[in-house]
Amino acid sequence: MKKYLSPGLLILFFVLSAIGHYAHWPATLEFFIAAIAVIFVAGFLGKATESVAHYAGQRLGGFLNATFGNAAELIIAILLVKEGLFDMVKASITGSIIGNLLLVLGLSLFAGGLKFKVQKYNVTLAGMNGSLMIVAIIALFVPAIFLNTHVLHEEDRNSLSLVVAGILIVAYLLWLVFSMITHKNYLADVTEGGDQELPHEHEPAWSKKKSILYLVVATVMVALVSEWLVHTLDTLTSRFGLSELFVGAFVVAIVGNAAEHSAAIMLAMKNKIGAAVEIAVGSSLQIALFVAPVLIFVSHLFGKPMDIVFTVIELAAIGVSVFIAKSITQDGQTNWYEGFLLLAVYLILGVSFFLV
Amino acid sequence: MKKYLSPGLLILFFVLSAIGHYAHWPATLEFFIAAIAVIFVAGFLGKATESVAHYAGQRLGGFLNATFGNAAELIIAILLVKEGLFDMVKASITGSIIGNLLLVLGLSLFAGGLKFKVQKYNVTLAGMNGSLMIVAIIALFVPAIFLNTHVLHEEDRNSLSLVVAGILIVAYLLWLVFSMITHKNYLADVTEGGDQELPHEHEPAWSKKKSILYLVVATVMVALVSEWLVHTLDTLTSRFGLSELFVGAFVVAIVGNAAEHSAAIMLAMKNKIGAAVEIAVGSSLQIALFVAPVLIFVSHLFGKPMDIVFTVIELAAIGVSVFIAKSITQDGQTNWYEGFLLLAVYLILGVSFFLV
Amino acid sequence: MKKYLSPGLLILFFVLSAIGHYAHWPATLEFFIAAIAVIFVAGFLGKATESVAHYAGQRLGGFLNATFGNAAELIIAILLVKEGLFDMVKASITGSIIGNLLLVLGLSLFAGGLKFKVQKYNVTLAGMNGSLMIVAIIALFVPAIFLNTHVLHEEDRNSLSLVVAGILIVAYLLWLVFSMITHKNYLADVTEGGDQELPHEHEPAWSKKKSILYLVVATVMVALVSEWLVHTLDTLTSRFGLSELFVGAFVVAIVGNAAEHSAAIMLAMKNKIGAAVEIAVGSSLQIALFVAPVLIFVSHLFGKPMDIVFTVIELAAIGVSVFIAKSITQDGQTNWYEGFLLLAVYLILGVSFFLV
Repeated sequence: MKKYLSPGLLILFFVLSAIGHYAHWPATLEFFIAAIAVIFVAGFLGKATESVAHYAGQRLGGFLNATFGNAAELIIAILLVKEGLFDMVKASITGSIIGNLLLVLGLSLFAGGLKFKVQKYNVTLAGMNGSLMIVAIIALFVPAIFLNTHVLHEEDRNSLSLVVAGILIVAYLLWLVFSMITHKNYLADVTEGGDQELPHEHEPAWSKKKSILYLVVATVMVALVSEWLVHTLDTLTSRFGLSELFVGAFVVAIVGNAAEHSAAIMLAMKNKIGAAVEIAVGSSLQIALFVAPVLIFVSHLFGKPMDIVFTVIELAAIGVSVFIAKSITQDGQTNWYEGFLLLAVYLILGVSFFLV
Repeated sequence: MKKYLSPGLLILFFVLSAIGHYAHWPATLEFFIAAIAVIFVAGFLGKATESVAHYAGQRLGGFLNATFGNAAELIIAILLVKEGLFDMVKASITGSIIGNLLLVLGLSLFAGGLKFKVQKYNVTLAGMNGSLMIVAIIALFVPAIFLNTHVLHEEDRNSLSLVVAGILIVAYLLWLVFSMITHKNYLADVTEGGDQELPHEHEPAWSKKKSILYLVVATVMVALVSEWLVHTLDTLTSRFGLSELFVGAFVVAIVGNAAEHSAAIMLAMKNKIGAAVEIAVGSSLQIALFVAPVLIFVSHLFGKPMDIVFTVIELAAIGVSVFIAKSITQDGQTNWYEGFLLLAVYLILGVSFFLV
Repeated sequence: MKKYLSPGLLILFFVLSAIGHYAHWPATLEFFIAAIAVIFVAGFLGKATESVAHYAGQRLGGFLNATFGNAAELIIAILLVKEGLFDMVKASITGSIIGNLLLVLGLSLFAGGLKFKVQKYNVTLAGMNGSLMIVAIIALFVPAIFLNTHVLHEEDRNSLSLVVAGILIVAYLLWLVFSMITHKNYLADVTEGGDQELPHEHEPAWSKKKSILYLVVATVMVALVSEWLVHTLDTLTSRFGLSELFVGAFVVAIVGNAAEHSAAIMLAMKNKIGAAVEIAVGSSLQIALFVAPVLIFVSHLFGKPMDIVFTVIELAAIGVSVFIAKSITQDGQTNWYEGFLLLAVYLILGVSFFLV
């Protein structure tokens, strides 16, 4: 892959895509240029993440990647909240969670599994991730079931949403304390110091400082190109008569997570499955426990309160994604067939959303 | 048990049962003859399976047994689909899945656990089986929830059913590739080469070729006798005022799975718990991932499309069965009390279906 | 803590609280005296349990504590059944189950986890507990879903409730046989004979006989004071306009389980996490598998049959509590963050019940 990462082509397509966006080129042309650009910038981001992960360890590297990747989504979502497009915000939150848990994780396990028979990572981290995922769906599920079976005042509805959102943000911050400070070694990658770190491994291409700088630059580029691409898709899909729900949950989510996709798959194929899982699962946890609750608080700041109640099919989609991802990741071992199963569930959900 | 397996009595009751069926003897008489015949042929099948398992290893033996056992069910179900009896087909699919996961598995763990304090089998296989079960219920659950919350055209409904059915069949075929080819040893029985294979174990009664021949013959006999027995039950139960749902989900399923019952329990009592679990769980997976989807495609060939949407109580029954079976099998260790818990859930479901 | 357990103050506040209750002092005064008394008697009970646990082993000690703790709740619930207050009975059963699984277990893991980085207990016991919890929710969930989707005669409704209740009681009795007789060592505390039992551990304050006597006395005192306190709360809460559901599920349950709270947390902070989990999980299992079913039989004896059908939000609350508790306990390792997650879910449920 490295040979194709010509800096010249990367910059060329990024600039072309920017011009296309701001000069309002025809949507189809804009789409193809942006799609090519996204491949280059995602590749660049993948390489930068890998380099940072080399210096920072797999978990911190994965966390950085997930955070940078989601920063872009948070910004886009805030703009949507400001315009009161709550349904599309919730659809894209749903899409991001299931896209990371099923598509990104599935492709990573599948690609990694084709190269390595069994890939292992810290089983305790797997268990903690599973519990956090369960808490995330409980936080979405409980308000929905209470509000669907009882009539509540608008005010109580908002209070419930804010309290649950506040609890999730606290849970996320404490998780950072737990996983980065008090129990860092407890959740360390099983492979660190193991056979992946043998002397024959390639030296990272860049120095520590340069890697971090490139990671930031690449993330910003991915965010921009993703947005331009999403913009064209919006126009294109309306021509093909797709529903907002499908576009929000699948098209936007797939494109918006291009960074996580490429980075996670690349790491999995280098047998750094711990970092790949951290990107995929960590990113979906970050969206459920941090991005979504923050959006609820932001909506109140804008004076247009958004509640935490998702639709039945969004809850069902998130619920089944969490169950299968938890079942597959909990033993700390992965193989190609487990990756396929995640992709199969993603396909079932995709077809169902498409037809509705 | 071997002493009772007199070939003479086996053939006598098989022939009597056949005559009773085709000569239309009184249903009560036919029922008792067929019931005795089923005990003999099931015993014969159990012995043949055990003998094949000796040569083929526990897992392949279990797979062969499950496949031969389900071949009979597939044929009966196709006949029902042809007649458009979709409700009974779905009830019997439900019954087969929960019957295998709760009754067959429960009796095996219970009987085996009374003889051996703790029985162990491959924990990785347990985890994979659990994930496959989750995918199976997701595939049944997602279309049901989408179709219950949204109005879909007849055509889209059928498309969704066919796509999901297709994904399940691909998942099943790839599972065979995974478990029989690419990761065969990874899922091998923990006990192979262990204490069960000690020299004092009895030699199998038959040669390799003879064992396979007898396995096929016994399976065909079980299929035939089961059908004759089911036929009499249908008449008998209508006299006692039982619902179609109860008969389909419990009576038909129990009798139709007599082969799996006897083989699995016999293996469990010889401490070959890996093969017993493979029969019970493998059989239910085969029905959910292969038999049910094939029936949907077959129904389209007949020009009478059957959808994949099960009723709420069927989904609930399958769902709770998968959850308790997954919880109990996932640590790769079994004991008598876990067998009892499965039977308790089966009883709760049985009483509920009976009263509805 | 020991220094505050002055026998004089304990008796003083117990007697004052008794006088306040029977002499009908003002509710607010009665409340504060009873609240102080409950702290003293709970501390006394905690010390007695710990002393008995020293002689009897962690598991039997935990079982004794759970049983004595629930005896009080059973008596209170029988009185409520006699008066036909079925909704409050079910709300308090719900509250006891989720209070033990989330609040007691959560505080124990959190407090223990602040002192010890990782606490371990028997992973097989964790798995068995998880399966029992699943059976308990299946037993509550299946009748509810059958009765909500089908119309049943009053008589069949009662039969179904009685059969399910009977199965649960049998399951509970066989669990005692399994865990105390046939598989006692299999579920033994991992730490027994380990580093907790080092010679530098403090000798228990009392002899074996005295410990058992004090355990019984302390339990009776806790039961009495709890009832007096609950009585005052009932008056107080009606002034603040709280719903019966919230009072039953949260206020009554928290106060009624004060004994379990103090004992479990104290044990967790002495690194006897196995006993702490046994109290919390064992107590909730005892309520679901024994107390609740017994109440159904008792209601028939009174000629006022109570069914086993809980409301949707009660089922949801029990269901999510079981899922998160199972996910967190199943690896046999605990830490402070897992305790926090349980408390977060308890808070989400508490706010939801409060607002409804």
